[in-house]
Amino acid sequence: MKYGITENVKTIESKVKVRDIIKKIAEKKANAIKYYLEGEEFEQAIIFGAYLSGNYIANTLKADCGEVILIDSQPHLEDIVTGNGIKFMDLNTFMLKLRNNKDKEINPDLIIDVTGLGGVDPNMLKDFDPKVLIIEDPKSSFDKELMEADNTHKRLCVGHKKGSLKTFRSSKISKTSGTMTLTVDVIMDSCIEIKELDGVLYSVPNLEYFEGIVFHEKDVRKFLREVNTPALTVSCLGNLEAEIDEIIDKNMQKVYSFVKLVK
Amino acid sequence: MKYGITENVKTIESKVKVRDIIKKIAEKKANAIKYYLEGEEFEQAIIFGAYLSGNYIANTLKADCGEVILIDSQPHLEDIVTGNGIKFMDLNTFMLKLRNNKDKEINPDLIIDVTGLGGVDPNMLKDFDPKVLIIEDPKSSFDKELMEADNTHKRLCVGHKKGSLKTFRSSKISKTSGTMTLTVDVIMDSCIEIKELDGVLYSVPNLEYFEGIVFHEKDVRKFLREVNTPALTVSCLGNLEAEIDEIIDKNMQKVYSFVKLVK
Amino acid sequence: MKYGITENVKTIESKVKVRDIIKKIAEKKANAIKYYLEGEEFEQAIIFGAYLSGNYIANTLKADCGEVILIDSQPHLEDIVTGNGIKFMDLNTFMLKLRNNKDKEINPDLIIDVTGLGGVDPNMLKDFDPKVLIIEDPKSSFDKELMEADNTHKRLCVGHKKGSLKTFRSSKISKTSGTMTLTVDVIMDSCIEIKELDGVLYSVPNLEYFEGIVFHEKDVRKFLREVNTPALTVSCLGNLEAEIDEIIDKNMQKVYSFVKLVK
Amino acid sequence: MKYGITENVKTIESKVKVRDIIKKIAEKKANAIKYYLEGEEFEQAIIFGAYLSGNYIANTLKADCGEVILIDSQPHLEDIVTGNGIKFMDLNTFMLKLRNNKDKEINPDLIIDVTGLGGVDPNMLKDFDPKVLIIEDPKSSFDKELMEADNTHKRLCVGHKKGSLKTFRSSKISKTSGTMTLTVDVIMDSCIEIKELDGVLYSVPNLEYFEGIVFHEKDVRKFLREVNTPALTVSCLGNLEAEIDEIIDKNMQKVYSFVKLVK
Ligand SMILES: Nc1ncnc2c1ncn2[C@@H]1O[C@H](CSCC[C@H](N)C(=O)O)[C@@H](O)[C@H]1O
Ligand SMILES: Nc1ncnc2c1ncn2[C@@H]1O[C@H](CSCC[C@H](N)C(=O)O)[C@@H](O)[C@H]1O
Ligand SMILES: Nc1ncnc2c1ncn2[C@@H]1O[C@H](CSCC[C@H](N)C(=O)O)[C@@H](O)[C@H]1O
Ligand SMILES: Nc1ncnc2c1ncn2[C@@H]1O[C@H](CSCC[C@H](N)C(=O)O)[C@@H](O)[C@H]1O
Repeated sequence: MKYGITENVKTIESKVKVRDIIKKIAEKKANAIKYYLEGEEFEQAIIFGAYLSGNYIANTLKADCGEVILIDSQPHLEDIVTGNGIKFMDLNTFMLKLRNNKDKEINPDLIIDVTGLGGVDPNMLKDFDPKVLIIEDPKSSFDKELMEADNTHKRLCVGHKKGSLKTFRSSKISKTSGTMTLTVDVIMDSCIEIKELDGVLYSVPNLEYFEGIVFHEKDVRKFLREVNTPALTVSCLGNLEAEIDEIIDKNMQKVYSFVKLVK
Repeated sequence: MKYGITENVKTIESKVKVRDIIKKIAEKKANAIKYYLEGEEFEQAIIFGAYLSGNYIANTLKADCGEVILIDSQPHLEDIVTGNGIKFMDLNTFMLKLRNNKDKEINPDLIIDVTGLGGVDPNMLKDFDPKVLIIEDPKSSFDKELMEADNTHKRLCVGHKKGSLKTFRSSKISKTSGTMTLTVDVIMDSCIEIKELDGVLYSVPNLEYFEGIVFHEKDVRKFLREVNTPALTVSCLGNLEAEIDEIIDKNMQKVYSFVKLVK
Repeated sequence: MKYGITENVKTIESKVKVRDIIKKIAEKKANAIKYYLEGEEFEQAIIFGAYLSGNYIANTLKADCGEVILIDSQPHLEDIVTGNGIKFMDLNTFMLKLRNNKDKEINPDLIIDVTGLGGVDPNMLKDFDPKVLIIEDPKSSFDKELMEADNTHKRLCVGHKKGSLKTFRSSKISKTSGTMTLTVDVIMDSCIEIKELDGVLYSVPNLEYFEGIVFHEKDVRKFLREVNTPALTVSCLGNLEAEIDEIIDKNMQKVYSFVKLVK
Repeated sequence: MKYGITENVKTIESKVKVRDIIKKIAEKKANAIKYYLEGEEFEQAIIFGAYLSGNYIANTLKADCGEVILIDSQPHLEDIVTGNGIKFMDLNTFMLKLRNNKDKEINPDLIIDVTGLGGVDPNMLKDFDPKVLIIEDPKSSFDKELMEADNTHKRLCVGHKKGSLKTFRSSKISKTSGTMTLTVDVIMDSCIEIKELDGVLYSVPNLEYFEGIVFHEKDVRKFLREVNTPALTVSCLGNLEAEIDEIIDKNMQKVYSFVKLVK
């Protein structure tokens, strides 16, 4: 707590940071996948899409996988990988390896694709024969254009067991299941709820267009610094520290993630 | 327009900037005051509170005033003053001048106080005898604590004609009439509306706790740089440039400011 | 609880009835007036406007008043009066009495006007000389047209002590302070909140255009029957009886009423 | 338009009636099915669930079907059937016929099930061998309990071509795809939007628990009478007739229905 413009008004920053919300949502996705895999073990897991949940999913799976390869079309996303035991590969390198794959260096029995809209080409997946294939469905609340842009069903083309990773917010609108979309929405809806508390002047989300830092500036370290900030800042009269973080928590709990079996 | 993560998704920044919204709201307040003054002319106008609308109000009034003095308790707010013909004075200097005021150097016939909650001390106003006194009422939508913290009625203690500057958003909740509060709310509500458009993934307000820059960092120039940014950034599929700015405009038009005559 | 279309779905009616909400709001208004009067005693209180809170206000005041007269332009509203000791008079009869008022039969020391928009003519009030005059301000959240239609300030023309009865909902939009407006809004907002509960299919407000029954059909008894119905009906899977009524209660608690001293 | 309590206030009823909204939504569902069937012709179509869209769907299909049988577990729902050429059968009679079905009197090549939550038993469907099977998915916006209660996937057990009828509201929360749920939500959201118009005092949805009339009172005719009422009634100052119906229309257009091919 700091004072605001005058001593009558306080400035409170949420204890919850933007990155805590990102992490919580990514964990829900990772746990949904883990639950779906039922403790099964794999020799080689390939995950397409390092940003924003790919890295968390990789870390969650590595105990049950001989090898975990995280592939992204953007080479600089190697910087987003944390933890040992995860092999990052950019898409070009991967495609090259695939063409000279006589000794079956690339032979995944688990494929997870979280690249979403405009991501992995369904044709690329056709030649694999994994035990399990999981495609993240980017759709969340209904939106006609987004539904038409989505090709999740086409990507679900191989695999003995196929699943679609779905993530929703209960009774709230989120246009996609993207970790960033959900993070923005959780913070926005929390701000709106906090504004209704007695004695609150206003509530400011500490948001910016973070994806520009990752994909236009290509500066992952700056991105990680920028999300290390309180999710929101509140200008108010009273001691609302506890209420503020509870409202954010409540909004995080509205996020549900699960893998739907596809036949 | 830039592409987003992939070429399927676009990134659109609003043409409207945060500072455009601030300016529009400050202008509405300045015009409300001008309308109330009905073209009357004054010898000396004193405005308490430079941030955030005080400077605009000063510039609007200077044509009809022999002298316009803008007073703020924060000396560094001199940097917020633009335009010629406005004399900035910090509160201490002003109080000193007031004590040695034999030759009536300070003798305002117009006093405007936009310092809001915890601002000008009503006792300080008692010794003036202005033709017109206008106090900005910080209350907007009903809030019990904010109502109890407000002392607008106590400040309305002198003046042949007294008025209370009121600013509201039509059919929308804003907890105070503060220019920053209204700016935040206009951007937040625009984001929520834009999110509902077909093909929008998410809409990010480019907000931060701007008042921290002005009052904690005491860096007005940085503040002016930071508000010189698109009000919001939208991740979407279609060409929504026009719709996005229209929604912001519509939300700005919901702001109404007027001076209520007090008897 | 009843079953819905099939045994999987339950139908739950709120224990809170429409008339409970009306009563609670009318009580808040009556208590606000009582608090403002500080236990003072009056010889003759005149209340303009029987519908919808006038009757409750009359009953709250009668202990401290020698005589309480409730006046309405609609004679059939006599049927809304409950309790002993309140004298109903239609406006015509009252005006007639006023013209032949030599022995000061009509000589109120307390006047309360809750007729709202288009109600009591300010000129009619001018000839009284009450100790206390209270006018209910019909405005609540800001609305330009409603503000322009309101003439509360003109009616506040007599009285040694003058007050304006104001009623708001905290952090919620209500366009007027009318008891019916607030009742509709409390039920609507409760329905929206209940719909968000896990397992709720939909939530139906048991509302109709009640004022048509009172003012077009002129059938007060039917009105009283129709508001004696659960505020809302919920179609859901779980046992949400408690949550449902709590949400309505919470929404009723957002209604604040107070008399503002006018000088 | 009628006057309200006084001549200052108007009462406007929407031209759109509750039943117009029901019809529009039922038509969208019927058209979604028709589009999915691509003009194919059928000898015998069986539709499970007469209420609330079953009858519209039956009427839309009858041109392309030799016979259309509408089955409901509630015999009194025969009264909801309109138009010639649709054979209503209660579930018991149907089950009986099914047991003595030597001459293949019951042999549908098209089955449509719109009974929703707790409706048709998946086991009952197993013995059929239709060319096309369509099951209405009752889920709309995400809700954990409703998702768990739904067994659409289990009912999709037979059929050369299988589809799931899905209905959503774009960027709005509706907890189920039920015609009544969507009708209630369209009216509620319209009321909220209308309340925001300048000069509106309040907006009342003319809703009641209609399903109680159909399933508890078992009085279809009364139900049809009760939904033949303006969707909402508005108390306001201005001439808002056009705006009011436009807002309802806009909300109806947010309803999207389509059949999703299931493999
Ligand atoms: N064909 C492809 N192969 C591998 N990575 C790809 C790809 N197309 C896009 N990507 C990467 O996939 C990511 C898409 S963003 C995915 C976000 C993720 N669904 C979440 O919710 O967190 C980006 O990092 C992008 O660079
Ligand atoms: N006693 C006082 N005299 C002069 N300025 C004061 C003051 N107390 C506070 N201030 C200044 O008044 C401003 C309060 S913020 C006011 C915001 C304004 N109502 C708007 O809507 O734009 C700050 O700049 C603060 O430094
Ligand atoms: N001039 C007048 N004198 C007395 N009663 C009047 C009047 N004009 C209107 N009325 C009555 O005043 C009532 C207006 S409705 C008032 C509602 C009230 N403010 C509430 O919140 O409950 C109606 O009963 C109407 O018949
Ligand atoms: N096993 C069954 N067979 C036939 N009809 C059934 C059934 N179980 C329930 N029903 C009927 O199915 C209807 C369920 S309500 C269905 C509403 C529909 N989905 C809509 O959106 O309009 C009721 O009429 C009920 O009586």
